[in-house]
Amino acid sequence: MGSTKVTAPSLKDLTIDNITPNVHLVNSPCQNRRLKYLLERLVTHLHDFVRETRLSTDEWMTGIEFLTAVGQICTDVRQEFILLSDILGVSLLVDSVDHPKPEGATEGTVLGPFHTHEAHSVANGESIAGDPDGQPCLVLCSVRDTSGKPISGVRIDVWETDSKGFYDVQYADRTGPDGRGIVTSDDDGLFWFKAIVPVPYPIPHDGPVGKLLGRLGRHPYRPSHMHFKFDKEGYDPLITALYVRNDPYENSDAVFGVKNSLVVDVKEVKDREVAENYGAYVGCALIEYDFVLVLESEALALREQRAAEAMKAQGRKVTFLDGLPVPELD
Amino acid sequence: MGSTKVTAPSLKDLTIDNITPNVHLVNSPCQNRRLKYLLERLVTHLHDFVRETRLSTDEWMTGIEFLTAVGQICTDVRQEFILLSDILGVSLLVDSVDHPKPEGATEGTVLGPFHTHEAHSVANGESIAGDPDGQPCLVLCSVRDTSGKPISGVRIDVWETDSKGFYDVQYADRTGPDGRGIVTSDDDGLFWFKAIVPVPYPIPHDGPVGKLLGRLGRHPYRPSHMHFKFDKEGYDPLITALYVRNDPYENSDAVFGVKNSLVVDVKEVKDREVAENYGAYVGCALIEYDFVLVLESEALALREQRAAEAMKAQGRKVTFLDGLPVPELD
Repeated sequence: MGSTKVTAPSLKDLTIDNITPNVHLVNSPCQNRRLKYLLERLVTHLHDFVRETRLSTDEWMTGIEFLTAVGQICTDVRQEFILLSDILGVSLLVDSVDHPKPEGATEGTVLGPFHTHEAHSVANGESIAGDPDGQPCLVLCSVRDTSGKPISGVRIDVWETDSKGFYDVQYADRTGPDGRGIVTSDDDGLFWFKAIVPVPYPIPHDGPVGKLLGRLGRHPYRPSHMHFKFDKEGYDPLITALYVRNDPYENSDAVFGVKNSLVVDVKEVKDREVAENYGAYVGCALIEYDFVLVLESEALALREQRAAEAMKAQGRKVTFLDGLPVPELD
Repeated sequence: MGSTKVTAPSLKDLTIDNITPNVHLVNSPCQNRRLKYLLERLVTHLHDFVRETRLSTDEWMTGIEFLTAVGQICTDVRQEFILLSDILGVSLLVDSVDHPKPEGATEGTVLGPFHTHEAHSVANGESIAGDPDGQPCLVLCSVRDTSGKPISGVRIDVWETDSKGFYDVQYADRTGPDGRGIVTSDDDGLFWFKAIVPVPYPIPHDGPVGKLLGRLGRHPYRPSHMHFKFDKEGYDPLITALYVRNDPYENSDAVFGVKNSLVVDVKEVKDREVAENYGAYVGCALIEYDFVLVLESEALALREQRAAEAMKAQGRKVTFLDGLPVPELD
């Protein structure tokens, strides 16, 4: 619009064909250019969805009631909207868009709804899992940059279920965090801790999202995995997970999170020296992985480059505000 | 897919570019063809929204939290998701798609979130409004079919705010329905009742939807109006409203509901005979309107015709199930 006069919205007699540009016009005074762009695209897609499907009033009301139920089942420890986003593939897509990885960097995957901010810090070698029924497992990893240099002092948030497939927060009677901990990489970029071998589990499916999965003929299972979140100043945060090879749900994860590069073998500690160095025992299960982080500047450049390509493909002239695209003013 | 073999979904290594068809493939076992089609379009639009806007993880989380808050503020008497749909123009669009009107029929508009199922039936001439501060108003209407023939026995659900701009359900201490009633058209297709002259009011804006309006630089007001919902076996239900001419918000309804054909003058009862016949008094405010309903069969035919045109424009071959389109099987 620039300096040209904005036509006063004519909000009477809106029809199937003219309502979308009218809603855009009404939203156009929004001062936040990014929010305005998000709303413009959101309204366009919502309206196109209705026009294309010829959505009925009954279906619309079913949708309203579904979204309401999704909101109402949410609590401090249950986030059904994240589940909904997960099973529609939206979460994985957002992560892929927001955290592009150059060749050689560890791929990201879905955060899921069970990350909390209450995990305790543990020293390397300590255990994060209190479940006596779980199969003990040494997790021995390194974290490096894309040039192969070890990165020390990385904060690594780890979480997994117990042997029954439940996260700590799913127990009403829990007394504190379990199956989660925060470790820090040492001077050689190494970190290690004791956990249990992950097991497959269904995402919570006693709520509206579970009902939707049922109506779609889908199962609610996730393959065995352990979550990792890496944070260090100057590096792009990495949200990822390791998946156990040959899990029955390896090829049909309900939330689309598995990537080949993140599938690992559960091995066995065979070397007495390794067992002694890392506080494990010979015969203990072992998961090893070498993580590779991306510099924040590198991620930002890649994100902007891919965003510019995507916007160009839509025939839009764009500019960037805080690293996020908005249409260029005329 | 028909009788051809469905390729087993390959759910590993999903990328920005291949995730959408994979989610469709996972949803493809759904037995309900209409639900499958709705999900296919919904997932496509959600994914395109993320790809086009390059949605960030932070923005996604803001959206998740917003939707959660919208769900959590809902109660038996407050429906914030309908409000959200209203202010984005979705509600009006759905009504336009689902209830197409042939030339001469009364246009529909948004239902809004304040319709209830507890209104009492009132005889013609009775009052639906108990507010002593409201300006008394006789509402005198007819209801006919598109050929001009009066329709008797139509159930007409009417609702409006009190003189302060609040619906009954917005009062925590209310004792029963007020400002709402159900009238029935007589043998001449006439119905009349006493109410108050509608006033403008803000939609509830103390919740997440109100905050969104604020961030968009929009006001939350609706112009003065009275809601009507018409039901009779054999006729397409009509959800509409009458708007008072020259209201300050006539051209900027927060929910996009005003249509020129639904704007009325508030007149005055001048004729002593009219006053006597309809239980009013000379000098009383008067709203008159002639409503025209559409046969259910006529609406269905028009809906299917327009749906077929819209689907054809998308290059889709369609078939209809219960009057709603689904893609034709190969």
